[in-house]
Amino acid sequence: MHEHVVVTKIDRPDPEVVSGLGAAGVATVHEAAGRIGLVGPRIRPIQQGAVVAGPAVTVSSHPGDNLMIHAAVEVCRPGDVLVVTTTSPSTDGMFGELLATSLTARGVIGLVIDAGVRDVADLRTMGFPVWSKAVSAQGTVKASPGSVNVPVVCAGQLVEPGDVVIADDDGVMCVPRADAADVLERSRTRLAGEADKRERLADGVLGVDLYGMRELLAKLGVRYVER
Amino acid sequence: MHEHVVVTKIDRPDPEVVSGLGAAGVATVHEAAGRIGLVGPRIRPIQQGAVVAGPAVTVSSHPGDNLMIHAAVEVCRPGDVLVVTTTSPSTDGMFGELLATSLTARGVIGLVIDAGVRDVADLRTMGFPVWSKAVSAQGTVKASPGSVNVPVVCAGQLVEPGDVVIADDDGVMCVPRADAADVLERSRTRLAGEADKRERLADGVLGVDLYGMRELLAKLGVRYVER
Amino acid sequence: MHEHVVVTKIDRPDPEVVSGLGAAGVATVHEAAGRIGLVGPRIRPIQQGAVVAGPAVTVSSHPGDNLMIHAAVEVCRPGDVLVVTTTSPSTDGMFGELLATSLTARGVIGLVIDAGVRDVADLRTMGFPVWSKAVSAQGTVKASPGSVNVPVVCAGQLVEPGDVVIADDDGVMCVPRADAADVLERSRTRLAGEADKRERLADGVLGVDLYGMRELLAKLGVRYVER
Amino acid sequence: MHEHVVVTKIDRPDPEVVSGLGAAGVATVHEAAGRIGLVGPRIRPIQQGAVVAGPAVTVSSHPGDNLMIHAAVEVCRPGDVLVVTTTSPSTDGMFGELLATSLTARGVIGLVIDAGVRDVADLRTMGFPVWSKAVSAQGTVKASPGSVNVPVVCAGQLVEPGDVVIADDDGVMCVPRADAADVLERSRTRLAGEADKRERLADGVLGVDLYGMRELLAKLGVRYVER
Amino acid sequence: MHEHVVVTKIDRPDPEVVSGLGAAGVATVHEAAGRIGLVGPRIRPIQQGAVVAGPAVTVSSHPGDNLMIHAAVEVCRPGDVLVVTTTSPSTDGMFGELLATSLTARGVIGLVIDAGVRDVADLRTMGFPVWSKAVSAQGTVKASPGSVNVPVVCAGQLVEPGDVVIADDDGVMCVPRADAADVLERSRTRLAGEADKRERLADGVLGVDLYGMRELLAKLGVRYVER
Amino acid sequence: MHEHVVVTKIDRPDPEVVSGLGAAGVATVHEAAGRIGLVGPRIRPIQQGAVVAGPAVTVSSHPGDNLMIHAAVEVCRPGDVLVVTTTSPSTDGMFGELLATSLTARGVIGLVIDAGVRDVADLRTMGFPVWSKAVSAQGTVKASPGSVNVPVVCAGQLVEPGDVVIADDDGVMCVPRADAADVLERSRTRLAGEADKRERLADGVLGVDLYGMRELLAKLGVRYVER
Repeated sequence: MHEHVVVTKIDRPDPEVVSGLGAAGVATVHEAAGRIGLVGPRIRPIQQGAVVAGPAVTVSSHPGDNLMIHAAVEVCRPGDVLVVTTTSPSTDGMFGELLATSLTARGVIGLVIDAGVRDVADLRTMGFPVWSKAVSAQGTVKASPGSVNVPVVCAGQLVEPGDVVIADDDGVMCVPRADAADVLERSRTRLAGEADKRERLADGVLGVDLYGMRELLAKLGVRYVER
Repeated sequence: MHEHVVVTKIDRPDPEVVSGLGAAGVATVHEAAGRIGLVGPRIRPIQQGAVVAGPAVTVSSHPGDNLMIHAAVEVCRPGDVLVVTTTSPSTDGMFGELLATSLTARGVIGLVIDAGVRDVADLRTMGFPVWSKAVSAQGTVKASPGSVNVPVVCAGQLVEPGDVVIADDDGVMCVPRADAADVLERSRTRLAGEADKRERLADGVLGVDLYGMRELLAKLGVRYVER
Repeated sequence: MHEHVVVTKIDRPDPEVVSGLGAAGVATVHEAAGRIGLVGPRIRPIQQGAVVAGPAVTVSSHPGDNLMIHAAVEVCRPGDVLVVTTTSPSTDGMFGELLATSLTARGVIGLVIDAGVRDVADLRTMGFPVWSKAVSAQGTVKASPGSVNVPVVCAGQLVEPGDVVIADDDGVMCVPRADAADVLERSRTRLAGEADKRERLADGVLGVDLYGMRELLAKLGVRYVER
Repeated sequence: MHEHVVVTKIDRPDPEVVSGLGAAGVATVHEAAGRIGLVGPRIRPIQQGAVVAGPAVTVSSHPGDNLMIHAAVEVCRPGDVLVVTTTSPSTDGMFGELLATSLTARGVIGLVIDAGVRDVADLRTMGFPVWSKAVSAQGTVKASPGSVNVPVVCAGQLVEPGDVVIADDDGVMCVPRADAADVLERSRTRLAGEADKRERLADGVLGVDLYGMRELLAKLGVRYVER
Repeated sequence: MHEHVVVTKIDRPDPEVVSGLGAAGVATVHEAAGRIGLVGPRIRPIQQGAVVAGPAVTVSSHPGDNLMIHAAVEVCRPGDVLVVTTTSPSTDGMFGELLATSLTARGVIGLVIDAGVRDVADLRTMGFPVWSKAVSAQGTVKASPGSVNVPVVCAGQLVEPGDVVIADDDGVMCVPRADAADVLERSRTRLAGEADKRERLADGVLGVDLYGMRELLAKLGVRYVER
Repeated sequence: MHEHVVVTKIDRPDPEVVSGLGAAGVATVHEAAGRIGLVGPRIRPIQQGAVVAGPAVTVSSHPGDNLMIHAAVEVCRPGDVLVVTTTSPSTDGMFGELLATSLTARGVIGLVIDAGVRDVADLRTMGFPVWSKAVSAQGTVKASPGSVNVPVVCAGQLVEPGDVVIADDDGVMCVPRADAADVLERSRTRLAGEADKRERLADGVLGVDLYGMRELLAKLGVRYVER
């Protein structure tokens, strides 16, 4: 009943929405989405300063086996972000510069992988951004079936093919395709509000006053004492 | 019986002693203090090369809730270091660039947090140094009481308000306020002794000779063999 | 029966082979060796961009005690890599800039340590490359016996004295001395083949075609669907 | 856009199918389902020998807050299994004997929780089976909203309300409601085949012969040597 | 300045208060104390069903070294609980049946150790209850100084000599000596209230009604839907 | 160069020595061996009270693949202990009751596995003792080559085929075949000495007196104070 499939056609979100979400950044989009959608913090960037946003092409792979990453390249389109998961935990280096070369040729803009990567010096030099659970040179086989473009769970977060993946120095965030435009609008509203707050905080206004927390603190029984 | 309080006034150490300890650095101060006081190594800098030393303003917070960090800003003074802990383990991103903006306006020089932070790209750009357990964009609520300027345990180390916190690329160290001047003096003695040792080791003198370890090795039964 | 020994003389591999393996890099050598020999990914570089290869001088130490590292300096020769393990897990900072100064004076080119290091800012400035399990300023004693140049297990990998240790941004790899020349030859063959593959992948040739995986995917029952 | 909801009505699977899956056990059902559906091994039973199978009622909760578990009790029906997750990692003891008493009164047959539980001695005495990530007495607040009967990710596995959850000493397994009957049939086929295999293996027939692996081993290049 | 001391005389709490806290159990006492004082959940019992409460005699030890546990025996009195910590993380088996025999002879009723223990089969047979971070036979030396009856941090919790330590299947809890009588009174109030709640929940009354949570849920925006 | 082999003939230790080591137990043998040889504490028994000792038959397997365990059965002899490792970390359930049935038919007396096992309820019922890193029902494939009876590293400990493996509630210990008789003799000497010590400690003699530690404590600068 459980079939291994490569789904060749997926619906992708509006590119302008995608690019707007990337500009807003992971932390803002996460708040705008109602504090859901964050890929777990074990997924870390191998570089500093990279920001990507794109439709997810998803891979579900046997641990220690990168056959399905190779199979996934063909269904990627320019602007996509590849999201790789394994069916049980693994830190093996399933991805390196040859695969990055191939993905770059397809226009893929980044990789999120709940496993290991290798050739990280080359990947940094190439400017191919990666967010991974581990760096490991441990080689893998190409022997077991898996799937491409099925729903996957990446570091505790459900990612469906075509969802918007945003990744920056704070980590990785997933927005369901259907919610993307709405979340973008909320992100922009949020960013606008933050600019004003930032200015006032920089001027020395206290957050407890700016956000009106004094009453809450009192109600929660927090007392101010000198000791 | 357990009250939630914000202690508004704390005793702070002598600023010259604080600055001397910062100049000595975490590893030296740790040795000078008798190899105690180190905050556990899970607390890592989000930047390279930053060094801070200052009196601790401490926060004890419910996990997933940053209300008490907001409450703490008001009691900070220029030169302070904010030390944030949670009542149970959490990697949530309790702190970001808006709070850093507010702390900077108060003259706070850095953050040590046994939880997560976000907006790390912004924090690096602002030059606000942070030592944390995790980087995570996971948003938090502002709903539960906690305390400011009570004794806290940060990554296994007791930190009392007004203790000297020193942080650099090696991690984070805490010196009780009452011991600070004494530890500084011992740190300086130590640094003076190290300069001489460094020179001799660079000249090729062996540590086993410099430190007189040959006798100890023999006494412990360590044999030299050729095989 | 279990003796603590310092083995003063070990057989070292051919320097040209060592340097060839360093040029090939950890990931390539690991594949060439048949996907064995990798030190576990918990060992990470404290710097970016460093590459070292050299004969292993090994240390087996009591946790929280760096006496045997001092004892090991004497038996090191120019070009060696020091490999330090503890008899039970420890993150203590057993190694810092004074030991690095001493090792540099002996011509040692790097350290691999399944424990903690400190003075990392200094080590980076000195250009002494280190791969470690942790950064920690936790000081250690010099009180317990151990051994130098005996077989050790480092992050799950057996390392014998005189084995070739290769370390770069991908981690650390160990090649038995007797296999080194053979693995180098296979590494070079592999590198030659990769250049061609890289070019074709950059041209847009798919890996599934380049590596002939379509038949395997079909045989494994992976179906292509549109949905 | 992200709403907090309590979905009061969910579709439940056929009780006979559910009970058949429970009788087959986690390991068999997992194989029958095509080796998918397993909740990660960090979720462990607090007792030995318990086996439960039932429709999942799911809870998504703020960490350190058990308000939504209380809210979930009302929508449970006899035979259900409660599945509790938090929006970020937590080991807090969100569940104890009072909640178990309440669930037992509703006919709920067990709890799967990706967080902590407490009162474990009482829970064992009551015979209320629990699978959890941690045992911890850390108390929680009742202050933050969450949801009941929405899709959740539990230790890396997507669980939808009404899916069949099977739990025994091997861990926890989830079968989508739509697949349950089919997986049960395959489980029974598998069990029938295993009885025969067990008998032959007990008679000393080797697995390599029984499963015909000798050819595969030869093809993979595994050589038999005496040394 | 940092001295290693054995403090031979400590103030102990009222034995009746201690025994009352033990009867209330870890979870109840933790709630009564205001949800503070819990030793982290990495400390687990090696047996089931044991409950102990007693004044803490504390040990701060070098990792991999059990000299100070031996030194601590002399200052223990009947009814005490020994609490052992190390100055950096260790899983070594610092404690076994010989030490348990010695402690039993002194009337010590249990051990809490943030490190490893061994001879666990013997310890279970002897009925000497232990809560530890690990089970490990790894032997230790007796070579480094430490302290007895100084404040220690055990799995994140400050424990002062003479504090009341309560331990059961839920873990370990510490109540400051000065608060013990007050916390006991609150624990008893709590237990009385729970008996009534338990009965009503067993009768099918819902927690959301019993605790009056419906208004809070509505105020937090949690909506009830059928779908 | 790296071949996958099944070594069909190994040298086994003297059965009387093996049985003597089993009777001495892991903790005693570990001390007798000079505090080396312990398999790391992440390997835990799935049952209580089992004690086994036998020659190691070793397996090196691809993660998520149990083909080589099947291949190993044939080379096992009555009294052997199977030791299974993977070439990179894995918690997959590579072993269950069918394999245990097959091993039992060959006379194998236990399993040590640095990965996961399943069917643990059945394994306990069968009385087939297992020490493992994890319990997990995650199924595995039979697709990748590995080796049998080659040196392996199990949880940080080198194990060679034919070494004596001893396992009990304290964990797992490995004694090189050549050292077994000598270690047994030392174990017996140790056990004899412990009986006397146990009696004296039970009589209230202090360890600091029995082991003569008072002088050491004084020399290390540990002071006795009243406070």
